[in-house]
Amino acid sequence: MPLAVGMLGYRFMGRAHANALARLPMFFPDAPAVERDVLIGRDEQALAGAADQLGFARTATDWRDVVEEVDVFYNLGPNHLHAEPSIAALEAGVPVLCEKPLAADDEAAARMADAAAAADVPTATAFNYRFVPAIQYARELIEAGELGEIHHFRGRYLQDWLVDPEAPWSWRLDADLAGSGALGDLGAHTIDLARYLVGDIAELSGHLHRFVDERPTPDGDETREVTVDDAYSAQATFANGAMGTFEASRFATGHKNDHTIEIHGSKGSLRFGLERLNELEVKFEGDRGYQTILVTDEDDPYGGRWWPPGHVLGWEHTFVHENYEFLSAVAEGDEYEPNFQDGLAVQRILAAIEESDEQGQRVDLES
Amino acid sequence: MPLAVGMLGYRFMGRAHANALARLPMFFPDAPAVERDVLIGRDEQALAGAADQLGFARTATDWRDVVEEVDVFYNLGPNHLHAEPSIAALEAGVPVLCEKPLAADDEAAARMADAAAAADVPTATAFNYRFVPAIQYARELIEAGELGEIHHFRGRYLQDWLVDPEAPWSWRLDADLAGSGALGDLGAHTIDLARYLVGDIAELSGHLHRFVDERPTPDGDETREVTVDDAYSAQATFANGAMGTFEASRFATGHKNDHTIEIHGSKGSLRFGLERLNELEVKFEGDRGYQTILVTDEDDPYGGRWWPPGHVLGWEHTFVHENYEFLSAVAEGDEYEPNFQDGLAVQRILAAIEESDEQGQRVDLES
Amino acid sequence: MPLAVGMLGYRFMGRAHANALARLPMFFPDAPAVERDVLIGRDEQALAGAADQLGFARTATDWRDVVEEVDVFYNLGPNHLHAEPSIAALEAGVPVLCEKPLAADDEAAARMADAAAAADVPTATAFNYRFVPAIQYARELIEAGELGEIHHFRGRYLQDWLVDPEAPWSWRLDADLAGSGALGDLGAHTIDLARYLVGDIAELSGHLHRFVDERPTPDGDETREVTVDDAYSAQATFANGAMGTFEASRFATGHKNDHTIEIHGSKGSLRFGLERLNELEVKFEGDRGYQTILVTDEDDPYGGRWWPPGHVLGWEHTFVHENYEFLSAVAEGDEYEPNFQDGLAVQRILAAIEESDEQGQRVDLES
Amino acid sequence: MPLAVGMLGYRFMGRAHANALARLPMFFPDAPAVERDVLIGRDEQALAGAADQLGFARTATDWRDVVEEVDVFYNLGPNHLHAEPSIAALEAGVPVLCEKPLAADDEAAARMADAAAAADVPTATAFNYRFVPAIQYARELIEAGELGEIHHFRGRYLQDWLVDPEAPWSWRLDADLAGSGALGDLGAHTIDLARYLVGDIAELSGHLHRFVDERPTPDGDETREVTVDDAYSAQATFANGAMGTFEASRFATGHKNDHTIEIHGSKGSLRFGLERLNELEVKFEGDRGYQTILVTDEDDPYGGRWWPPGHVLGWEHTFVHENYEFLSAVAEGDEYEPNFQDGLAVQRILAAIEESDEQGQRVDLES
Repeated sequence: MPLAVGMLGYRFMGRAHANALARLPMFFPDAPAVERDVLIGRDEQALAGAADQLGFARTATDWRDVVEEVDVFYNLGPNHLHAEPSIAALEAGVPVLCEKPLAADDEAAARMADAAAAADVPTATAFNYRFVPAIQYARELIEAGELGEIHHFRGRYLQDWLVDPEAPWSWRLDADLAGSGALGDLGAHTIDLARYLVGDIAELSGHLHRFVDERPTPDGDETREVTVDDAYSAQATFANGAMGTFEASRFATGHKNDHTIEIHGSKGSLRFGLERLNELEVKFEGDRGYQTILVTDEDDPYGGRWWPPGHVLGWEHTFVHENYEFLSAVAEGDEYEPNFQDGLAVQRILAAIEESDEQGQRVDLES
Repeated sequence: MPLAVGMLGYRFMGRAHANALARLPMFFPDAPAVERDVLIGRDEQALAGAADQLGFARTATDWRDVVEEVDVFYNLGPNHLHAEPSIAALEAGVPVLCEKPLAADDEAAARMADAAAAADVPTATAFNYRFVPAIQYARELIEAGELGEIHHFRGRYLQDWLVDPEAPWSWRLDADLAGSGALGDLGAHTIDLARYLVGDIAELSGHLHRFVDERPTPDGDETREVTVDDAYSAQATFANGAMGTFEASRFATGHKNDHTIEIHGSKGSLRFGLERLNELEVKFEGDRGYQTILVTDEDDPYGGRWWPPGHVLGWEHTFVHENYEFLSAVAEGDEYEPNFQDGLAVQRILAAIEESDEQGQRVDLES
Repeated sequence: MPLAVGMLGYRFMGRAHANALARLPMFFPDAPAVERDVLIGRDEQALAGAADQLGFARTATDWRDVVEEVDVFYNLGPNHLHAEPSIAALEAGVPVLCEKPLAADDEAAARMADAAAAADVPTATAFNYRFVPAIQYARELIEAGELGEIHHFRGRYLQDWLVDPEAPWSWRLDADLAGSGALGDLGAHTIDLARYLVGDIAELSGHLHRFVDERPTPDGDETREVTVDDAYSAQATFANGAMGTFEASRFATGHKNDHTIEIHGSKGSLRFGLERLNELEVKFEGDRGYQTILVTDEDDPYGGRWWPPGHVLGWEHTFVHENYEFLSAVAEGDEYEPNFQDGLAVQRILAAIEESDEQGQRVDLES
Repeated sequence: MPLAVGMLGYRFMGRAHANALARLPMFFPDAPAVERDVLIGRDEQALAGAADQLGFARTATDWRDVVEEVDVFYNLGPNHLHAEPSIAALEAGVPVLCEKPLAADDEAAARMADAAAAADVPTATAFNYRFVPAIQYARELIEAGELGEIHHFRGRYLQDWLVDPEAPWSWRLDADLAGSGALGDLGAHTIDLARYLVGDIAELSGHLHRFVDERPTPDGDETREVTVDDAYSAQATFANGAMGTFEASRFATGHKNDHTIEIHGSKGSLRFGLERLNELEVKFEGDRGYQTILVTDEDDPYGGRWWPPGHVLGWEHTFVHENYEFLSAVAEGDEYEPNFQDGLAVQRILAAIEESDEQGQRVDLES
């Protein structure tokens, strides 16, 4: 019996996850069989077209009607819709994959994490960049001590789609719907990678900034207020003593999807950039400079699953790996990470950055 | 009625094309419907497993049994098996996509091109790198005159899988089975891109080299003679007066799949590298340096088909684009390029390089 | 009559400035004539050797003996020795070039700036990176509005000479002698460039960190306490509304002298790195990516003074340019920047970063 | 008694060598003392100004008048003037440094080499790129076997100052004065590095091309014929079995002084580019990618002579190193390389490339 997937959301993330599900059999034949069962949305006509294209068997306009029927629930809706359907699924014992950030605020995220703890089924917060082979390789190197004690983490995520003050308003720019702006959308990814690669954050100070306060609606007839940040920065101390600096912007002219991570340890350093995601730059102990490594070898993470060395993967492959790991955990009843606890931990850091910005003070996360 | 595809070959190229076929409906819904009908190979057990994984309905151990039944024939076998099945398919009026190089020698390639001309159905020589968005963008720039008159083409394709003298013998190292070595396997791609971007070659001198003359068989019990080149170089004059230099090697330590193209014109220049295939570097007229361009925008070639700007594609996407274009031509009865005439033109250049190497003389290709 | 230069300090910075003076006649024949008159230091023997090698006519072991005799005074001593000799020179009406940071603390810096204001002679704080041609070109672009309104400044300065916990103690690691560590030594450069390219800082929060608390003395017999920071970070808002992030470390394994500046504006962006100081990456309005520009053309800053395009300059050339500009101002009685007021402005920012770190609060610099 | 230098030529190369001489005392105090004695040229007025700026004690308008008086003779004139004055100096027992290529043709070069052999004093052909620290480091790595057996050498030298068909005629474009174009001016450097790093060439085929046949004179009143090549390419086999490809152009739009060298061996590979001359990229055995190495450490070639690690050098430093080595050899009576024999060896390769181009045949250099 294949796992019946119910998926709320059918736009950008819906396509990314549906594609991942469709590709599993050919490249991960050991993954559990999956049925794209029901696609959930409100606009019936658009939904029907999407279900057809994305290969779902049926549709539903209310998640309440189907959330208990499916074997796995994917919550890919706007951030303010993450909590209620996910909690309902978990209460019905249905494993849930939820897009990031886990919720629009840390209160909702905490309720979700509580529901996950009570449910005893795998949950996933969809921090897909953990599943870039180069990032997994970075994690292996750090775990193996190749970088020594970590002194510095530096992460930034740069986009430029809002630099035009006439770029239209969308739900992502509304604090009630999205929670935050660049902070939650982009910063959440960076913070998750920081936790994955370096560990928990002990204290931080944060700064949010909005460059444009109102924008035209998509139809251009009126303007609406922007209530989220356009950019954020943060400086942190990790529990292990490392320093961290963080930054994201939607105003970084010339950068489309530039998520860059740099780590310096006592023995080595590494660098990663999402726009060249097949590469990891590593300065190993004894080396005189960074090696530019193409992480596509047979024995690299997921390397043997795809193509010969040097035949590069794309952004979407991270979703295939993520779905493979999550669905395998669902089928086996195994632990999965990053789960809702991880999502909550990130959310608390996002909240601390906002609090620090408002109060103009450093925030202690360990108390 | 979906187009029934018969596919000879189920290893590396079989996976690449089967994956492309599987992905068309979700991302190219305007592509003709396709049925993965019959997979063809000699080893029944391996074939059955492959058909299952690659999603084929049935298998055949002799291409003769099925080549006339299918709507499209994909010939992905070793080079010396390109001619006979392809010609049989064409004689039955079946469109054929054949992997590159078109044949093991130019005589066989000429027979294939003749059969294609007689058949009046689309043919494809599978030079998939024409379908990298950055390459199509490069072609658009050149066609639009953005580079001015072309003065220089420089192409090299570097791999290193043979640098270890104990790397095992395979059919790719046998002149009877493969035709040539780095020249046909790698150089054919470079030469096709040169023709696509700059035009036909008028004269050239070539040089082939073999560093290791015999290698152990895969089981290690004996050695077999290597009868192809490990590396080649060529220097050419194009019909339009541009200079060209070409090189490929399987002994380029540290390079996995490094296919690099550089073009200088009177107004601008461009550079492309396959390991960073989402990027094109372009020096436009009036610019002070090369722009590093991420060719992933909505209006870039195939850009709107996939993901938002900056969400990079992989190597395999070239096959999706190639299959989309070829199958659309099949469905519509349109012209398709690169076809068997293009494959023959490349083959004649490969032959001229070999001839020049043997005779120590420049070869005129226009006579 | 050549300008007689008195120079306090004959090690790293002494060599850099003496070399600059020596090179002026051949490449800047319009510079005022200069006599390397007196070299000042305490160790008579070392001083004599240095004066010989650096081309000084005589030596002095007490700056008091000569500071009023010379036409220009160069103060290249440790930071805690910047104030007294510089003020004495200024009180004697002698123009002063002082190495950066201007002083060990902002109180001393303020006294120096006051003395400069009272003296009515040119002063220089030796922020030599303003004199990299690529930085001057960046400034020209920004002044001309090519980047539009500036939204982001990002600066970091990475070195790794302290990552080994056994690296020996030196005066640079003592708060009384140096004032601060990475903050004043490296951060001062970044902050000066931020002021030069973007403008004044309105508020900031800062963070200092020390990884190693004591180190062996150079002779290895004992250990001494490290009382300065090994690394700092800061996040700031500029008076014009731009966001800024700053970082420096002496623990960034694999980085020798990696001073990187990135700026994003509403119309364009730019990037600069000191280890490739001949290059500026610029994303102009209408461009699809960053141009990698070699700033060595005839009409680039100082371009016509040296070699043909593409014949790159080195780190030391920044000193030649700096000395040319400063000495020309001295000879002409012109204004010079960056002067002691600029040095004080930077010092106040350094102090604000320390204050913010101590108090865990954002600091307002405009009040 | 300082060595009295007589220098023929005071433009680009005159400045480069005069600067080198001027800088020796401060950075290479162990170099022999040198007196910039006499500067030689035909235009008295320009010569006097140059002597003043370059620091020469006196001038001469006929080299015959002074060539026997000086201790060292620098021949920096046009290529067709290399032979006669150099031979005269050697016949007088005066050591000679001559700019590259050694002569306008191989017959003249052979006479010069004969004179050098007869004179028993050091000679230098001024292939200054041997004295880039990164190139010397590359040589050390190869000599130490770090790259294993060399399989491939690839060198190209790209400039673009002639791509405009209205760029003015100069002596460099006249075969009688210059010998050849891009081949001798740029290719000579590449070929010298190939010999330095890999060894002698056994056979080659070459190709020359001219894109523009006549150009306006500098005053613009008339046009003059261009009689040299605008670009060349060559493919070669080294005596040790390595393959080599060579290319240079003055029509490579966007490239100012881009001299790039790539070498692949059985154990490792390396890359060097002149516009980033402080860096060497090396793929060592066991590494997963190229290390980007900043060759500025204390124990790198000439590293301890200049600045701390990461404080980069420029193009002109190659001349300082070259002059240091040559003058030390003169003072000590030691051997020096590259000498006139090396210059002749390069000249013979240049001639072989021309011969191959004319005859359309491969040329054997060992017979």
